[in-house]
Order: sequence, then structure tokens, then C-alpha cells
Amino acid sequence: MENKKTMELEGKKVSESKTIMTEMIMPNDTNPLGNLMGGNLLRWMDIVGGICAGKHCEAHVVTASVDHVSFQKPIKLGDVITIEARATRAFTTSVEIYVEVFAADVKGKNNRMCNHAYFTFVGLNDDTLKPKAIPSLVPLTRDEQSLYDSALRRRELRLVLSGRMKPEQASGIKALFAEAPAKT
Amino acid sequence: MENKKTMELEGKKVSESKTIMTEMIMPNDTNPLGNLMGGNLLRWMDIVGGICAGKHCEAHVVTASVDHVSFQKPIKLGDVITIEARATRAFTTSVEIYVEVFAADVKGKNNRMCNHAYFTFVGLNDDTLKPKAIPSLVPLTRDEQSLYDSALRRRELRLVLSGRMKPEQASGIKALFAEAPAKT
Amino acid sequence: MENKKTMELEGKKVSESKTIMTEMIMPNDTNPLGNLMGGNLLRWMDIVGGICAGKHCEAHVVTASVDHVSFQKPIKLGDVITIEARATRAFTTSVEIYVEVFAADVKGKNNRMCNHAYFTFVGLNDDTLKPKAIPSLVPLTRDEQSLYDSALRRRELRLVLSGRMKPEQASGIKALFAEAPAKT
Amino acid sequence: MENKKTMELEGKKVSESKTIMTEMIMPNDTNPLGNLMGGNLLRWMDIVGGICAGKHCEAHVVTASVDHVSFQKPIKLGDVITIEARATRAFTTSVEIYVEVFAADVKGKNNRMCNHAYFTFVGLNDDTLKPKAIPSLVPLTRDEQSLYDSALRRRELRLVLSGRMKPEQASGIKALFAEAPAKT
Amino acid sequence: MENKKTMELEGKKVSESKTIMTEMIMPNDTNPLGNLMGGNLLRWMDIVGGICAGKHCEAHVVTASVDHVSFQKPIKLGDVITIEARATRAFTTSVEIYVEVFAADVKGKNNRMCNHAYFTFVGLNDDTLKPKAIPSLVPLTRDEQSLYDSALRRRELRLVLSGRMKPEQASGIKALFAEAPAKT
Amino acid sequence: MENKKTMELEGKKVSESKTIMTEMIMPNDTNPLGNLMGGNLLRWMDIVGGICAGKHCEAHVVTASVDHVSFQKPIKLGDVITIEARATRAFTTSVEIYVEVFAADVKGKNNRMCNHAYFTFVGLNDDTLKPKAIPSLVPLTRDEQSLYDSALRRRELRLVLSGRMKPEQASGIKALFAEAPAKT
Repeated sequence: MENKKTMELEGKKVSESKTIMTEMIMPNDTNPLGNLMGGNLLRWMDIVGGICAGKHCEAHVVTASVDHVSFQKPIKLGDVITIEARATRAFTTSVEIYVEVFAADVKGKNNRMCNHAYFTFVGLNDDTLKPKAIPSLVPLTRDEQSLYDSALRRRELRLVLSGRMKPEQASGIKALFAEAPAKT
Repeated sequence: MENKKTMELEGKKVSESKTIMTEMIMPNDTNPLGNLMGGNLLRWMDIVGGICAGKHCEAHVVTASVDHVSFQKPIKLGDVITIEARATRAFTTSVEIYVEVFAADVKGKNNRMCNHAYFTFVGLNDDTLKPKAIPSLVPLTRDEQSLYDSALRRRELRLVLSGRMKPEQASGIKALFAEAPAKT
Repeated sequence: MENKKTMELEGKKVSESKTIMTEMIMPNDTNPLGNLMGGNLLRWMDIVGGICAGKHCEAHVVTASVDHVSFQKPIKLGDVITIEARATRAFTTSVEIYVEVFAADVKGKNNRMCNHAYFTFVGLNDDTLKPKAIPSLVPLTRDEQSLYDSALRRRELRLVLSGRMKPEQASGIKALFAEAPAKT
Repeated sequence: MENKKTMELEGKKVSESKTIMTEMIMPNDTNPLGNLMGGNLLRWMDIVGGICAGKHCEAHVVTASVDHVSFQKPIKLGDVITIEARATRAFTTSVEIYVEVFAADVKGKNNRMCNHAYFTFVGLNDDTLKPKAIPSLVPLTRDEQSLYDSALRRRELRLVLSGRMKPEQASGIKALFAEAPAKT
Repeated sequence: MENKKTMELEGKKVSESKTIMTEMIMPNDTNPLGNLMGGNLLRWMDIVGGICAGKHCEAHVVTASVDHVSFQKPIKLGDVITIEARATRAFTTSVEIYVEVFAADVKGKNNRMCNHAYFTFVGLNDDTLKPKAIPSLVPLTRDEQSLYDSALRRRELRLVLSGRMKPEQASGIKALFAEAPAKT
Repeated sequence: MENKKTMELEGKKVSESKTIMTEMIMPNDTNPLGNLMGGNLLRWMDIVGGICAGKHCEAHVVTASVDHVSFQKPIKLGDVITIEARATRAFTTSVEIYVEVFAADVKGKNNRMCNHAYFTFVGLNDDTLKPKAIPSLVPLTRDEQSLYDSALRRRELRLVLSGRMKPEQASGIKALFAEAPAKT
């Protein structure tokens, strides 16, 4: 059997699984107004998030959930988007991935942060296809630590929203609603 | 100028924009384990949600946000999925769409509800491409009324999560955390 | 061995396999004039027809034939099409599916019936991949009965056109050419 | 105004528009049984037929109809198909195209004729997008003459099936049902 | 074991594997300027080259290399391209394929040769997936002989460019740089 | 008019346009043996190279040429590839881009360099769509300098192979064939 204690000692760094995807917006990615359709962006975010999670988990992974996503700035036909995915925290069998989307025009101008989201992936055992224990994540920088810390609160919210935790038990979210979050 | 009062009197029914999409899972929709990738499902949900919103708004629409989505039951290559989208409540320029995903095998057996999500779309003026006033929604059945009522609470949570409302102002969510939700 | 007599007693209703597909016309679906290409529409009609046939046959199915299809009204980029498929009559190992195509613009306006076609699918045994006996179809409404009745005549024409029946033996088609068909 | 008489004198040969397409069957072209889906084949047949018609008409074309199509021999993943399209006869504004499909395995073995169909395309005026007069077709070989002759009968059947000719007026089809066709 | 001597006696003709592909440029094949992207053309050239090589080798093949390719004349959305592939010379386990690209507009006008390239494919044994001996090629026409002869020089350059031959050993290329090539 | 002298003073660094693309190999990207098809890889290399060139040129670009590409190690279905593109040297209106391909399995294991190629892109003026003067490139590291120096030799070979320079004039290539290249 896998020894979870040992695995935690072998925790992995964020940089070991960080993944960058660059795509050019092609005609079929856009709606009749010439803007990238939200669903296509979500699809790419899921792919790059899954690649990042696969590297951290050293396993095939499946998407367990995606948190609230907002779309603010339109992305146009011919624009170039860069999607960056990095692990924020690993739980027993799942890992949370922070995915950021940046866009620029084809000339590399008009750079802008477009949106971001937190995806959760579950690592699977190759033979049983059941969830398996995965390496822990070791935050090193201040930023990594901040994402690591707030991951617990997001996990609680996720459990409440999917009906697997009663709202009144979500002690961490009470903290969320008692103070304004720096970054969520 | 558009008269919002009049438009509310001309509120539309849920049935006027309800939209059903059926798709068969093709090889390229799956991951190496042969399951539908989460991102592909999100893409289809966004398309059918957008078609539904376009009918309600009688306008081109853009995706503004998608709430938390969980993926529980795997969908296999060759399975047939049915995605149903219906409006739950219209706000000044945006409409919330409830999207449900059902799957079955190619023989029509093993029917199951796979997941659901709330998408928000904004109606755009054809010329200015700015948000425009949209028709209100008139709930008729008990189910429609329930989704209509809970839409306010989800909207509050959305505003908090996207940083446009301070958590302490979200009075409706306090209700969410004071009692277990019947259906969210 | 399967008991055909029993299966006929267990005939299935049209509503049990009716299937609806909704698609938005994307740039790559169109020709240089900005209209949906006929072949792309045929491809979708075949998919939704095959899903409908799979449900009725409770089996994997393959397309055996598609009858004459006319294209009258152009469908534009950004239009939304709804394709409805329902079984009209089951023969020993094959089922005829009636497929109708409706289009509207993205605002739900300019609704129109665009075209229709009859597809025939054969149900296959999972192991041998040979044709297998399928459930009969029980027409209930006046419309369903009308499509059920005229299916024999269409089948005769199909056999003649594919060279499997001599024209002079096609007694039903003589009826077709002796009187104007109500709906074919 | 275009002088139809002159254009007929300038009739074009079949060889001037003959078009060949070769495709390898990729995973996404197949159904869960690993066979090419009928609808995908129809889509390719429509594209190559349209290219052939565009060359003959020297115009943008749209698909007007496709006649009865049978699918007999399965085409497998990895097989190579060759689709040949050639004009059979030109009418005032439309041209009938005969499309044949051949398949072989990746090694060039197991060559077989898979199916064929007649498509009709209409040539469009660039500015008005209305049907325009097109060049006539001059059959040269015995085969070309045979397809040219039988085109009238197929056209009659097409008009009957689309409800634009009364069955009792279709004198040519009576011939069809009085004698077995050599090739239809 | 395969008898290479015998196989050479059974050398195949160029015409036995010549392959023609026709494609219409669809919106998603183009860049924001409306021109076919170079990479998409390379992809089609590789597919048609591979089909041609599979026929000559009577085997599954993999792309080993593609020589220098220049893109001179832009190909526009809606244009029709014809790609012709034919074997030039077979070596022990690999075959060189000459691929030419022609374009015309949708009306069959403005015909032009767009570019060409030499691809090399390796034939694989079905079981071991290792390279296998392939039939030799027998040039018949003057053109075929010319391509056959110059193939040795191109092979030398390929070996030098991929680091598998020292430049000073490439005796054939010295010929290349001593005289201007008629066609390379 | 653009002042070329000034632009050279404003030469750009390699890091300003370096671009990374990550892709997971999906079923439709593979041949019947389950390996990534060479042409699909070339297509991605062209896209990421074009994005990199667009950033350096601050312009729309078109592919002018791709040099010799070898494919050595197979890439399997489900593998993750990382494609890195960086400018090596800018000429008057064109820039050479060095594209490297790395692959790993879905677990981040079995990392390997798969292949590389040099693409050349031309920057276009937005209005005239004619080639325009582009910024020069300033190599900073030893590696960048080495690629910068060898770019002249590759350019000569390109001109010879596309028939725009006589072989006997290619003085740089004589150097290539007099000494073994460190990296080409």
C-alpha cells in the first residue's frame, strides 16, 4: 500500500508542474460577433489545467470541478491567448489548479489579463481507475503560500455548493464573509 | 429609449426559450481513458446556454459567468448526452440559464443525470455592442418559481466571488449559510 | 434465440426514441457565401437520425440509406438549427427515421422549416455485428399512422433505386404515380 | 444579357471539371464500431461534388438536392477513400454531378466500390446570388452519353419527390418502371 | 525472411501509387488575413504523401522527414487546392514522395502552381513496427527518371542536415553546388 | 516612411517574443498506429512559430519557408508536447524562428526532445499587405549568438534550394561542407 506520510515528505514544487499554453483565436472559435466564445476558453483552460494536474499527480486525472468563472474582456478573432496553469494545493487524492488567461493582439500589443479560475482534478490509479493518493505540494514563494492558504476556504465552498457539506459547518467561509478576500 | 416597465409587462415564459441539444461522444471528445473531457462538456453547455439566452433576450449574447460545476459520473465514448437549457430569471441586461446534462448509452439505456450548472449571459445591442435591456421572465410552474427565487442568492454569491460585492453586504448568502439549500 | 413474435408485442412508441438536436452555425460550417453547406447539414441529420435509431433498436446502428433530400432555404452563419428525428416504421432489422430541420436566427426570429429526409438504419448485434431483429413501432397519433403507412411505399422505391427490386414489381409505387402523395 | 444559345455552343467537356478527392479515415470520422459514419461520407461527397460543379458552372454553387444514397460496404478506420465527381448533364441553371466512392486499406489493397450518388447544384450569380445560366455539357464517351441520357429521368423523379411535378406527368419515370434500368 | 533481390525485380511503377487530393479552403484553415496558413498546407501534404507512400510500400508508413518548403503565392479562403503525390525513388526501407500543390478559385479560374516538397516515409512491419524492406520503384517516363536520379542528391543533403552524414562525405552535393540544378 | 536605421537601434531581445505552446495528443491527431502524424506536428510548429514571429515583427506575418525537418521519436496518443519558438535573427522584412518540440507522457515522465525546425516568416504591412521592415534582433546569450551567427548560412541554403541563389554563389554553405556543423 502507498505510504501517505512518505509521499508528503516527497512533496513537489509548483514549478515542477507549471504549464503554459498559447493559442491563436481561429474563426471557428468565435461567435457571430467575432469574439472568442466562453465555452471554448473553458475547454482550453480545462486541457491545460489537466496537463498541469497530470504532471503533479504523476497520474491520469479527471476534472472534478471548476469554480465560479467570470468573463470580462472580450477576446477577438486573431488574438493570441496565453493560459498558465499551476498547482495551488494538493489534498489526499485531488489537486487544485489555478488557471490564468492573458490575451494580446497578433502584434503582441494590448496585453491584458482576461480571466482566471480554479479547477480541481482527481488523480486516478492506472489499473483500478479509482482515486489514488497524490504527492503533496510545497509552496515556496509568498504568492504560492497565499494560494495554498486560501485553497482550504475554496474547498469548503466547493463542498457546500456541490451539496457535500452543510453550509453551517463551513467555518472557513464564515471567515470569507467576515473579511474582504485579497484574491479569490 | 427602451421602456423597461413596458418590457416587464411583456415578460416571456420559460418555455419560449427552452433549448435541447443532443450529442454523441466522438473519439476526439475523450481523454486517453476514453471518457468525455470536462472542458468539452463545458463548451457544449455554453453553446446551448447561449442559444437559450439569445432566444430569451432576442439579442446576441455573451457569456458573463458560469457558476461552480461539479463532474461526478463519467461519460464514455459513444454515449449520447442530452443538454437542456432554460432561463431561470432575467435581470436588467442579463439572464441566468440553468443547464442540465443527462447521459445514456447508444442503446438508450443507463440513463443518468450527470451534472448541471448556472450560466449568466448578457444581451447586447446590435449596433453599440453594449448591454441592452432584456425582457423579464415570468415563472409559471412551481419548479420555475423555485429557480426564480433562488436566482437572487446565486447572483449575490457571483458578485462576491467576482469581487464586485463585499462579502459582508451579501445578505442573501447569509441565508444560504443559515439553512441547507433545497436545490442550488 | 430472439423471439420476433414477442418483440412485436413489445412494440415501442415513437416518443420513446424521438431525438432533438440544436446547433449554432459556426464559421467552418459555411461556404464562401456564408451559408451552411449542404453536406454539413446531411452529416448532422445522419448523427441525430442514428441516435434516434439506436434508441429504438436498443442497438448500435449503421446508416443503410438516405432518401432524396432537397435544399430550399439557405441557412446563414450564426443561425440556430433544430433537427428533430423520429421513427416512422420498423422492419425486421431496419428502422426508417424521419428527420426535419428547422432554422431561426440567433434571436429566435425568422423561424422556418428548411428541409426533411428519410434515413434508414440497420440495428447490429453487438457480437456478430450482423443485422439483428429490432422492436416493432406502434404508431399512436394520426400523424404517426400516416408516416407509418407511407413507409412501405418509400421502402419499395428504395429497393428499386438500389437495384434490389425490379421496377415492375413495385406495386406500391404505381400507387405513388397514380395519385399525388399527401406527404412524402 | 447572357445569350443562352451561344453558351450551348460553348458547351464544356466532362473532363474539364472532373474532380478527385482522397481522404484517410481518421478516428473522429468513425462511429463507436470503428466504421466511417454515413453522414461524414455524405459531407465529403457534397464538398467534392460542389467543387466539380463550381468548375463546370464557373460560379459559386449551392447544393440543391441529393438523390437516394445506399451504404453497402463498411469503411474502416485508417482506410483510404477516393471520391470522384463528374458532371453528367447541365440544365438551365443547375448541373447534375455523379459522385462515386472507392475505398482501399492503407496498403492499397482490398479495393472496392463503396457507393455512389447524384447531387444537383445550382450556379449563382456573384452579385445577385440568384441562379444564373450555366454552360451546357457535351458528352463524348459512351459512358458519358449514357449518364447524360438517364439524367432526364432522374430529374423527373427529383421533381416528383420534391413535390414540384405531379407523378402522373412524369412520363420518363414510367419508362423507368416499365423496364429495368441499366445503371441508375 | 524477405528476399530483397526478388522484391527489386517486382519493382512498382509510379502510376501505381500516384494520389490526388482536392480540398476547398474553409474559414478555419485561414489566418486573420484570410489566407491559408502554411502549417495547414503542410498537414495536407503530409497526409496525401503518406497515402501515396502507403500504397507504394504496401505498409503502414511514418513520416521520416520533409525537405525545405517555400511558400510563394497566397491561397485564399474558398480557393480549391489540388495536391498531387507521387513516388520518386525507393530506398531499402524508405520512399521519397514528390508533392505538388496547385490552386484555383472556386470557378476553376486563376490556376497556379503554388509549391512543392519532398517528403520521406518509412514503411513499417505490421507486427514489429520496425522498418521493413519495400518494393523498388521503376521510373518509366523522362520526368520520372529525372526525379529518380536527383533523389540520391536530396538524400545526401537530408543525411547531412539531420547530422547523420558528415558534410565532407556528401559527394553528390558537391555536384549540386558545382552546377545549377534543373529542378530540385 | 519607416526609418530602418532607427529600428535597428531599437532591436528587440529574443525573450520579448519567445512563445511556448503545450498540447495533449488527441485521437484525431494520430495515425492508425496511434502515433502523432508528422503533418499535425508541422501545423502546430507553424502556428507557434507564427505567433512568435508576429510578436517580434509587431505585424501580421505569413510563413515564407520551413527548412528540412526530421522526425525521429514517435509521439503517442495522450502524450503532452511542449513546443518552444524563439527568434534567431531578423533580416530586412523576414525573421527566422527556431522551433523545438519536447514530449512527455501524461504523468510528466519520459521527457524527450523530439525534433526541431527553422521557419521563416515575413512581416506584412497592415494596409498594403506587402512585406514591411521589421525590428532587428539582439542576441544576448551565447546560445542566442550561436543561432544568430548560423542563420546566415541557413538563409543561403534556403535561397539555393528555392532557386533564388546559384549554388556557386553560396559562399557560406561551402563553409558548411568544409566543417561539421555544431548545431544546425
